[in-house]
Amino acid sequence: MLSARAAVLTAYNRPLEIREFPAPAVAAGEAVVRVEMAGICGTDVHLWKGELPVPLPIVMGHETVGWTERLGDGLETDWRGRPLAAGHRVTWASSIVCGECFYCRVKRQPTRCLSRKAYGISYSADQPPHLRGGHAEAIHLRAGTAIFRLPDELETTAVVGAGCALATALHGTERCPVLLGDTVIVQGTGPVGLAAIAVARQSGAQKVIAIGGPAHRLDLARKFGADEVIDFASSEPAARREAALAQTGGFGADVVLECVGIPTAVNEGIELCRDGGKFLVLGQYANAGDISFNPHLITRKQLQIAGSWGFEPRHVDRALAFLSMSPWAERFAGEVTHRYPLAEANAAFETVRDWRAGKTVLIP
Amino acid sequence: MLSARAAVLTAYNRPLEIREFPAPAVAAGEAVVRVEMAGICGTDVHLWKGELPVPLPIVMGHETVGWTERLGDGLETDWRGRPLAAGHRVTWASSIVCGECFYCRVKRQPTRCLSRKAYGISYSADQPPHLRGGHAEAIHLRAGTAIFRLPDELETTAVVGAGCALATALHGTERCPVLLGDTVIVQGTGPVGLAAIAVARQSGAQKVIAIGGPAHRLDLARKFGADEVIDFASSEPAARREAALAQTGGFGADVVLECVGIPTAVNEGIELCRDGGKFLVLGQYANAGDISFNPHLITRKQLQIAGSWGFEPRHVDRALAFLSMSPWAERFAGEVTHRYPLAEANAAFETVRDWRAGKTVLIP
Amino acid sequence: MLSARAAVLTAYNRPLEIREFPAPAVAAGEAVVRVEMAGICGTDVHLWKGELPVPLPIVMGHETVGWTERLGDGLETDWRGRPLAAGHRVTWASSIVCGECFYCRVKRQPTRCLSRKAYGISYSADQPPHLRGGHAEAIHLRAGTAIFRLPDELETTAVVGAGCALATALHGTERCPVLLGDTVIVQGTGPVGLAAIAVARQSGAQKVIAIGGPAHRLDLARKFGADEVIDFASSEPAARREAALAQTGGFGADVVLECVGIPTAVNEGIELCRDGGKFLVLGQYANAGDISFNPHLITRKQLQIAGSWGFEPRHVDRALAFLSMSPWAERFAGEVTHRYPLAEANAAFETVRDWRAGKTVLIP
Amino acid sequence: MLSARAAVLTAYNRPLEIREFPAPAVAAGEAVVRVEMAGICGTDVHLWKGELPVPLPIVMGHETVGWTERLGDGLETDWRGRPLAAGHRVTWASSIVCGECFYCRVKRQPTRCLSRKAYGISYSADQPPHLRGGHAEAIHLRAGTAIFRLPDELETTAVVGAGCALATALHGTERCPVLLGDTVIVQGTGPVGLAAIAVARQSGAQKVIAIGGPAHRLDLARKFGADEVIDFASSEPAARREAALAQTGGFGADVVLECVGIPTAVNEGIELCRDGGKFLVLGQYANAGDISFNPHLITRKQLQIAGSWGFEPRHVDRALAFLSMSPWAERFAGEVTHRYPLAEANAAFETVRDWRAGKTVLIP
Repeated sequence: MLSARAAVLTAYNRPLEIREFPAPAVAAGEAVVRVEMAGICGTDVHLWKGELPVPLPIVMGHETVGWTERLGDGLETDWRGRPLAAGHRVTWASSIVCGECFYCRVKRQPTRCLSRKAYGISYSADQPPHLRGGHAEAIHLRAGTAIFRLPDELETTAVVGAGCALATALHGTERCPVLLGDTVIVQGTGPVGLAAIAVARQSGAQKVIAIGGPAHRLDLARKFGADEVIDFASSEPAARREAALAQTGGFGADVVLECVGIPTAVNEGIELCRDGGKFLVLGQYANAGDISFNPHLITRKQLQIAGSWGFEPRHVDRALAFLSMSPWAERFAGEVTHRYPLAEANAAFETVRDWRAGKTVLIP
Repeated sequence: MLSARAAVLTAYNRPLEIREFPAPAVAAGEAVVRVEMAGICGTDVHLWKGELPVPLPIVMGHETVGWTERLGDGLETDWRGRPLAAGHRVTWASSIVCGECFYCRVKRQPTRCLSRKAYGISYSADQPPHLRGGHAEAIHLRAGTAIFRLPDELETTAVVGAGCALATALHGTERCPVLLGDTVIVQGTGPVGLAAIAVARQSGAQKVIAIGGPAHRLDLARKFGADEVIDFASSEPAARREAALAQTGGFGADVVLECVGIPTAVNEGIELCRDGGKFLVLGQYANAGDISFNPHLITRKQLQIAGSWGFEPRHVDRALAFLSMSPWAERFAGEVTHRYPLAEANAAFETVRDWRAGKTVLIP
Repeated sequence: MLSARAAVLTAYNRPLEIREFPAPAVAAGEAVVRVEMAGICGTDVHLWKGELPVPLPIVMGHETVGWTERLGDGLETDWRGRPLAAGHRVTWASSIVCGECFYCRVKRQPTRCLSRKAYGISYSADQPPHLRGGHAEAIHLRAGTAIFRLPDELETTAVVGAGCALATALHGTERCPVLLGDTVIVQGTGPVGLAAIAVARQSGAQKVIAIGGPAHRLDLARKFGADEVIDFASSEPAARREAALAQTGGFGADVVLECVGIPTAVNEGIELCRDGGKFLVLGQYANAGDISFNPHLITRKQLQIAGSWGFEPRHVDRALAFLSMSPWAERFAGEVTHRYPLAEANAAFETVRDWRAGKTVLIP
Repeated sequence: MLSARAAVLTAYNRPLEIREFPAPAVAAGEAVVRVEMAGICGTDVHLWKGELPVPLPIVMGHETVGWTERLGDGLETDWRGRPLAAGHRVTWASSIVCGECFYCRVKRQPTRCLSRKAYGISYSADQPPHLRGGHAEAIHLRAGTAIFRLPDELETTAVVGAGCALATALHGTERCPVLLGDTVIVQGTGPVGLAAIAVARQSGAQKVIAIGGPAHRLDLARKFGADEVIDFASSEPAARREAALAQTGGFGADVVLECVGIPTAVNEGIELCRDGGKFLVLGQYANAGDISFNPHLITRKQLQIAGSWGFEPRHVDRALAFLSMSPWAERFAGEVTHRYPLAEANAAFETVRDWRAGKTVLIP
């Protein structure tokens, strides 16, 4: 490999450009990976629209599977200690943390590391080695990246289909666990919502109710194990709430998992919790502004509300383990409905923006 | 005792009237208690103003110590199984729950019992036995009331000084624990705030910062163990937040305990939590309306937020045990700054309404 | 119903006798239930052998389903508040606690109630109403018994097949939870072991390894979801341990659930935990004497070890909810391999004693 | 500094020898520290006697304070990010872990790191840089050592007095927390027992009962906050148990903290737990053989038993924070009763072996 092409965002709301960069060298601990498949995440659309601050130009893409092409000195094992050599199929945690700051060391909240950086989000394509996002033919991984060699029986589509959503949901439910026998309402049926349904189901939820849309995503929600689905669009908020409460004996759910991102979903989610219940605010990744909110509900309903930000390498490890449990690899692979070559990256982004896809991937 | 006088609220925002009721009889399990001292809680002022729905006319008062006068058949021991006889000095849990509903049985959230009733709050003075609040010469206790005989060495003023605030704070910190070494910010220096300071201090907090006022309450906060106090009134919100953050290394506290009741305190409290920190919303007992609120903070700061409602009998038991640990009885007794006879109940209420008192009590 | 026959243990290690008792009357809150099916638990064999102290003569049987025949005044709803009338198919929690003692109230450990009594275990058949065990045509239930009306779609065999084992396993795993992704070793494949496999599987265990026997029970273990089974009998302890550790990457399991009852299983179980792992000692219900044990292992492996005794009504509620989740009712029903009429109770007991049965039931 | 003397154990049970080693150079990240004071831990006596396998010859000492003498390239901050320069007074975590193995990464049990090494325990004095224990004029610290700069107001004697015991107790009580209001029994009044008393007291224990000896240590136990002390030596086990149970209402303690090390203390500790209570097995650091043990107690008493091994850097950080809370620095400093120069190391060890000292230190 002498060079690699990448889809580059040069200005917000403008078409991506295909640029070619020289294939990077690898210093100690670093790696170059030839990309097999890369997911387009809803966050990427936010980046495209300029709703989250990123350096421009940028190669996006933080959900990637590829083959190791070059490995720097000392990089001989993956995060789990398995031997690593050129030609191995791998994925990796999208973030690197410092391991030394107040949040990394003292408070053990590494996802809040004071100098955390994420592939596809934090690196300018103008800076060498340029290739620091998945929407490219190759990506350069920094020393310290948590790389995971993939088992042969786990197909690439399942890994990219699960994307960052499954690791995000596993982290979130670590902070707000679904326990055996819980009644669970999942707000949202995008990738994070579907992953939350999967995690709730696999954790032994007694009943899983999904609120989302559009119709093709509600079908996916059912396939992922939702017992009941409620169409977000076809119902007024009050009717929707009543329908959901009716599924929970009128009291509300033991656990509500918010995976929507629209701020008012938090108002609705709190109404859907039973008294003494748990509420995970997982979808408010972007700052989408204020809501009118009554804090009396927190006291009176004596709720437990949790937030969760991104994920750690161990959640990627857990996500891969999750996919090894039947039937999850198959289901997450089935979430991938649209595939595009790199050259058609703009068309690919549009399917995500327009909620047309289950999950859209680039196959460079 | 042939009859007993009581302070009765007959209409919101109107002076209390002293009425005389016949001394009630006791059926099996019931008790009549001659009141020694009864606290006036901030909640009572809310009731007086009509900010919480209660039946009128009403005898208020849910923080009471007295001597057992008559005990119904079968009432031979207190909640802890200690022998109980006429003439014993006692206090009791202010609420009774059904023990059978969804929240009592299945979800073990008895403070959310579907038919919970509280002395001084839920009973009309028009209904026999009329005397169901502490602001009276005698009170009639239902069968099933959790009565606690007081040890001789624990003075009445300490018990009423701690009032419902200490049991409330103990319940709240059970749901949002202060752990050894935590940095804690307590918002509010009313009775609940002071109790929260006490609980944080006794639980091994590394540092306790109190935000409140007025000055006489900040003095109390220091006496209760606050390392630093910040005057709510003398500072702009931004300056206040900066001052508090400066006390926490700039990151915010491990635990923030909201004991204010003003809804915007929730906005400020969230800002005062470190990432990954805990936030107890304890003060929003009354529904004081909506705030403008950004839920993105919950996700990004990956917070743990808890609410807590009232308390159970076991929290009263724990509160009495807490008071037995030096120097807490003395400190809570010292919180009682104003004493009034029953006939001056209106003057007594005014000291609470005007934030003039540490704690005001009636001595019928 | 004028009278009811029962299988009565009159002396340890002697054949049960069939006796006839007058049909009991019901006072307020009490019930008489006509027995449809009653399980014979391993504990019953211990009772038969005199290994646990019980009053003689006794009607055993604490896993029972029947139809309500007579309901005392005030008994109008089941434990969940569902209407209850004569002719309803029900089961019930086998124990009643006082609700008032140190363990019930203060420490919330009701299974350790100082005056707990269990049907089929604590009541002499010489005392009226005589019929206080399930191995009879009818049973008399005390006021306060937690009765559960069964939904039509839940077959009796599933409920008796799950028996006390499922509620025991649910209580145990509440104290020592299996979390999503855990590797779990279950020691023992009797009814409690099978229930533990079911609970681990449904809670999202990554891998479940069962150690037990004989062969027909290992088949059941596989049907209940064990990924791997290791025959207790066909292997030396060292070989068994090696085989189990090989299934856990050599480190041991995240969670080991001991459901054997033989004291030395605790030695083996500790060896099978990974460092920092969890160990539930659930099977040591009877006092079977001392083992030679090295406590250094607890410190060095920094284990979390939990015990669990019996269960509460809410665990019966959770067990019935568990059975409503596919495919568990079918699997637990399939555990019932032997059915006997009351008159052949002795033959029935022998199948349990000799480990011949999956689960043996009496159909009076 | 051209060379440094050290006390060297060359053979088990033989006198220590004073040897002189060349002052070591420092590579990147390394440090040389001039020792101010070093504690002699009970573990050192075990090492001396050959009861724990260590490489010989060895410089012992894992509780040390000194002044930084040389700092390797890149070592510019301490573990908390505070600037670090030559001449600073420091202490450090005694162990270094790999950060990459199954226990470090996947299971987050770094104290069980597969290649953990501890100063004063794991390094042969024959290998350069020779000086890897605190019983010396200087010590060489590896890159990656968690170094803590000491605040001026915290005296060296308090830090060495707290030694490894306080960090060990803080780790142990993280796994087996003492909560506000708990009744606690501490078994053992050596350094770990005293630290456990301190932690229990500061965590809000309602009552702390210490069982230990000899008399001078019971005095220390009282000074550290024990409400009651029971002399191990002057009482039979049965009498001792009765005395302790009498202090807990006959039920046993909510939490028992075993800090003895004698295996039979585990038998006694379990008897001293109330049903549903917690038991920390902290003292069984050395393998001192088997006990006769009845596992039925774990099931019947439904206990929560925890082990804990060593500590992590963050526990040293917490220990220093603990010492900053009045009156703990003073109390731990007061635990140091014997001071010896390096040349009298053998006499110093004898005071520890013979239980004559509160805590003995070397001042090189």
